[in-house]
Parts: sequence; C-alpha cells; structure tokens
Amino acid sequence: MYLAKIYVTYKPSILDPQGEVIKSALKRMDYAGIEQVAQGKYFEVKLNAKDVDAATAEVESFTDALLINQNTETYRFDLSLVPDEVNA
Amino acid sequence: MYLAKIYVTYKPSILDPQGEVIKSALKRMDYAGIEQVAQGKYFEVKLNAKDVDAATAEVESFTDALLINQNTETYRFDLSLVPDEVNA
Repeated sequence: MYLAKIYVTYKPSILDPQGEVIKSALKRMDYAGIEQVAQGKYFEVKLNAKDVDAATAEVESFTDALLINQNTETYRFDLSLVPDEVNA
Repeated sequence: MYLAKIYVTYKPSILDPQGEVIKSALKRMDYAGIEQVAQGKYFEVKLNAKDVDAATAEVESFTDALLINQNTETYRFDLSLVPDEVNA
C-alpha cells in the first residue's frame, strides 16, 4: 500500500486572503518576525496500486480531478510505501 | 530568514468527515484502490529569527496559539533556512 502526502497551495499570482489574515493576527499578537504566511491544504491518501508508477499516475489523476481547483491551485506530493493494515 | 512548513492533521481519535466524503467521492469515480483519505491544513510561514532554536520556539508558540485547535488537531513542521528577500 502506498501513502501519498499531497500539499496544495495557491498559485503564486493568486491572492491568499486567509494567509494575509493570519499574518495580521500574528503581528497583533506580537510575533514581530513574521514575513509571510500562506495557507494551503494537506491530504494523506492511502491507496493500493501495483507499483510506484501506477500509484503516481493515480494520485495525479484524482488530485487534478477532485482535490484541487486547477485555475487557482497547484500541488506537489510525496509517495511512500507503507505496510498493509491487518484487518482484524 | 526561516521557512516553516507546518502540517496540521486531526488527532487519530477525531472523526474526519471531509476525508470520508472525499474517499466516498473517489470510490464513486472508480478510483478503486483508495483505502483512506485524511484532510488537513498546510501552512508556509516565513519568519525572521536569530537562530534555529529561536525560530523553532516561535513556530511552536504561534502554531499552538493560533493555527490549530489543540483539542482536536496535532501538527508537525519542518524548518529550513531561506535567503532573505531583497526589498527593491
């Protein structure tokens, strides 16, 4: 079984209002060193696939199809092999 | 300047309804190999700090204070040193 860790962020040209609000709040809370805050999404997906190429293709396919908005967001991901869970 | 990449996930005992909904949707879309989906949050924060220990302490402090709900969420983070941006 593979574990995909998928990191979704806004494209560089897209305004990130949540990130700006968090940055302002941190400044008000006297965290003076904060330069920039970006908020994104994070997914952990466990999937069965016959090999790492098949898993990569599947992750790219469903991330494009469901997890991100391709107009505004971009993503990267890591894949790792994890032991199958024992179904007791 | 340091870049902190902060990954927020639900604690293991907490129900993740968004993850369940995404898993159901992927199954309906014929991604048959999906075993588990967890949705979390991802933050990238750039901050100035005098050394890596100070940066680590600051990230832990503001993440606990603002970015997560300590009752339901947990997090981990990576810190890396990045070049200061030139303010033109």
